[in-house]
Amino acid sequence: MYSVDLNSDMGESFGAYKLGEDEEIIRYVTTANVACGWHAGDPMVMDRVVRMAKERGTAVGAHPGYPDLMGFGRRKMALSFQEVKNYVKYQIGALSAFTRSCGIELKHVAPHGAMGNQCQYDEEISTAIVEAVAEFDKDLIIYYCAGAVLGKIAESKGLRTASEIFADRAYMDDLALVPRKMEGSMITDEDLAIRRCVRMIKEGKVTSASGKELDIRGDTLCVHGDGPKALTFVRRIREAFADEGIEIKQL
Amino acid sequence: MYSVDLNSDMGESFGAYKLGEDEEIIRYVTTANVACGWHAGDPMVMDRVVRMAKERGTAVGAHPGYPDLMGFGRRKMALSFQEVKNYVKYQIGALSAFTRSCGIELKHVAPHGAMGNQCQYDEEISTAIVEAVAEFDKDLIIYYCAGAVLGKIAESKGLRTASEIFADRAYMDDLALVPRKMEGSMITDEDLAIRRCVRMIKEGKVTSASGKELDIRGDTLCVHGDGPKALTFVRRIREAFADEGIEIKQL
Amino acid sequence: MYSVDLNSDMGESFGAYKLGEDEEIIRYVTTANVACGWHAGDPMVMDRVVRMAKERGTAVGAHPGYPDLMGFGRRKMALSFQEVKNYVKYQIGALSAFTRSCGIELKHVAPHGAMGNQCQYDEEISTAIVEAVAEFDKDLIIYYCAGAVLGKIAESKGLRTASEIFADRAYMDDLALVPRKMEGSMITDEDLAIRRCVRMIKEGKVTSASGKELDIRGDTLCVHGDGPKALTFVRRIREAFADEGIEIKQL
Amino acid sequence: MYSVDLNSDMGESFGAYKLGEDEEIIRYVTTANVACGWHAGDPMVMDRVVRMAKERGTAVGAHPGYPDLMGFGRRKMALSFQEVKNYVKYQIGALSAFTRSCGIELKHVAPHGAMGNQCQYDEEISTAIVEAVAEFDKDLIIYYCAGAVLGKIAESKGLRTASEIFADRAYMDDLALVPRKMEGSMITDEDLAIRRCVRMIKEGKVTSASGKELDIRGDTLCVHGDGPKALTFVRRIREAFADEGIEIKQL
Repeated sequence: MYSVDLNSDMGESFGAYKLGEDEEIIRYVTTANVACGWHAGDPMVMDRVVRMAKERGTAVGAHPGYPDLMGFGRRKMALSFQEVKNYVKYQIGALSAFTRSCGIELKHVAPHGAMGNQCQYDEEISTAIVEAVAEFDKDLIIYYCAGAVLGKIAESKGLRTASEIFADRAYMDDLALVPRKMEGSMITDEDLAIRRCVRMIKEGKVTSASGKELDIRGDTLCVHGDGPKALTFVRRIREAFADEGIEIKQL
Repeated sequence: MYSVDLNSDMGESFGAYKLGEDEEIIRYVTTANVACGWHAGDPMVMDRVVRMAKERGTAVGAHPGYPDLMGFGRRKMALSFQEVKNYVKYQIGALSAFTRSCGIELKHVAPHGAMGNQCQYDEEISTAIVEAVAEFDKDLIIYYCAGAVLGKIAESKGLRTASEIFADRAYMDDLALVPRKMEGSMITDEDLAIRRCVRMIKEGKVTSASGKELDIRGDTLCVHGDGPKALTFVRRIREAFADEGIEIKQL
Repeated sequence: MYSVDLNSDMGESFGAYKLGEDEEIIRYVTTANVACGWHAGDPMVMDRVVRMAKERGTAVGAHPGYPDLMGFGRRKMALSFQEVKNYVKYQIGALSAFTRSCGIELKHVAPHGAMGNQCQYDEEISTAIVEAVAEFDKDLIIYYCAGAVLGKIAESKGLRTASEIFADRAYMDDLALVPRKMEGSMITDEDLAIRRCVRMIKEGKVTSASGKELDIRGDTLCVHGDGPKALTFVRRIREAFADEGIEIKQL
Repeated sequence: MYSVDLNSDMGESFGAYKLGEDEEIIRYVTTANVACGWHAGDPMVMDRVVRMAKERGTAVGAHPGYPDLMGFGRRKMALSFQEVKNYVKYQIGALSAFTRSCGIELKHVAPHGAMGNQCQYDEEISTAIVEAVAEFDKDLIIYYCAGAVLGKIAESKGLRTASEIFADRAYMDDLALVPRKMEGSMITDEDLAIRRCVRMIKEGKVTSASGKELDIRGDTLCVHGDGPKALTFVRRIREAFADEGIEIKQL
């Protein structure tokens, strides 16, 4: 029997600004990566999402990002090791106040945006994140993009990890995602996207943009919550997985 | 035997901006109220202060404030009940990440600036703070300015409290502090200030600005960490308390 | 011949957050109140809106607000006279960089949210705003809600003013808007709303929520840009005004 | 006759946070680079500094930086061309509100911190800054670190420029400053520092850290305003320049 976790970024609204269809997408995922007020989110949003997650039994993890609300945490910032470590620790702690108040556990940490992207190759940033998590709570799972150095470092420090895969993104030969501005970065054919997911989960294989066969570990599949099309796609994934004997469940 | 806790606001630096002599004042106090990055402080500062506190055995509490760095949290903001509650919860959680990482306990919560001042009379804000604290951790002590409605509400909800007194501030007839812009708000005669402290602690009495004798409970005495004069004054307080048989110790 | 200006708040998006249908609403209004990056808006958004306005000949004014992005500038803050004055000046200057770069003139200033509401009665805040505007550029028009003290103070200092009216809001007996949380605050019957507008513009009269006949001056009518219903309503207003012989034009 | 401008970064305080001795340093310099509220400074500080500058006849320029108050604008951020351009434009406009209100002219623009450092080699960022300045006001002078590509690009677009030199910093062979974390980055011998300044201004020559003779253009000398030592040093520079026949005057 195969199984996979379905996760989505949530709680990215801020004040009067609404982003994402949290109320809808939470019906289809098993895990929520919740923004912590730095690149997105605020305490009102965090409280609301954590309560929704509790009600539905959705697992909650922290989605820390750079201190750049104006850039949604997507712009690389030259932070020191200690800055990354303390910024991540702060954000995990802030979110944990809401899970603890609700009587649910914080389950994982998944770095957002530019910080997350830098974890593909950057050992210093990855180590900073891993140390922040380990010092806060050794039982938290580190979510990393398949192939990222973050996964290796987390495991070397004895932390549990989950390798994240994407239905709608093409892969480079080293498992890095094809950057969004490059042609062919997105898998737009939904049937193909679903077949790729199934293969990643059942066979541990994916074909890179250049046509190379790569090994890939898919513990958790990231789905997006923006737009009605996203919701339709998630529903199709769930149907396909049922047909393929892939159980959708939390880690 | 009489005893009192000595507390000081700390960790109010931010990025390149240094405020307060944390390294000095921590040698004289038993308790630190640590800013949580909203009205002052940042994760680097929080990490540093919490480590210093651990080294010296200083008790650490959260000093949450309004989201107003430019106004240092001293400007009243019209927030809703839920906003105050979630903002306080967020800040407590953020600081707890650093105490937890260091292996020390978070001991108390002391609202800062305008938020703290509003707790003198405002039941809604006080209740929001008490609920935030109680949901996060029922063992946290609520620090409130002597006479504040915050203390009554915290006790009615079963939380432990500490009544905070000030050496250098004059009191109104209802125990509210004489506002800083009013004449006579500050007790500038150090001998008088110290005699007032001793009396508040040993007799539970203080003379108001209008000359009225008031009952006051002094569990914790707030001392300031700004400027060399502040440090001299703290040293004098410690000497005087030793002579008077008042033990300085954590709650 | 009667005439009125149609204005709308614009440029309220921020970073990845989109708010309002600026591209749509700008087709129907003669004047744009552009957020200046404090309660909403950012330099990318400001640049985009100002360029659109230039293309369409829409008049551009500054829409300054409190330093409270998380509260969208809708929460009262206890600022000093000098703070309000300098904060408004800063925001007007920031927006003027974009109009000046585009070769168009900045035409007016319309305070936003809580700051705007306080201008109904608060002489200190109103004076601070008027002084900021007068020192920056004596030719700027002050937009004020009909009946607000801001209008009187601006006129007493020799500034030009425009009295703003609302199609969808009920009035108190002193011309203050019925607060949103009170029943009957919104005029939901579109036909009634339009008849009220026509009467305010042509007769200078409006019926208050309590049934009293009030004098009102309507130089500029505020229309909202959120949602498809808002756009339909603006189109209906334009049709009705054409039938009624009310010309829609800039001040 | 030789001449040079003396400039200093000013207005870097923020809210309750004081940084730099603006009141002192302004007595010794001819030009102030004023922070614009993004990496440092706020409207109250800007207003105060601009008024002081007016009183003393000090020239005022904008000192725009990255949107990173927590990092004091010293951390590289991966911004797009349009973002740099609009962010700089916004900040220039904001400061211009205060010079305009005071009846003095804004004279120049000098990029701060990481943004300034990137102008040594980065043509995209330099072009973005130059376009922002040129679109706002073609008469503004661009201050650039001697040797920076920013100077060349500004001149190619027809803007006036000033080449900035440093008394206390060592130079690489391509005129870039030796990074602060490298040994020998600072010229700590004051006599040597002053002799180097005199030579840069009179002969247009400086010896690099590796011992190479370099051509350098010194239109404006940057002096620091932090600490009593800085002030003593500025006074010494003024004396030495008087002896050497170097007139200190604005550009």
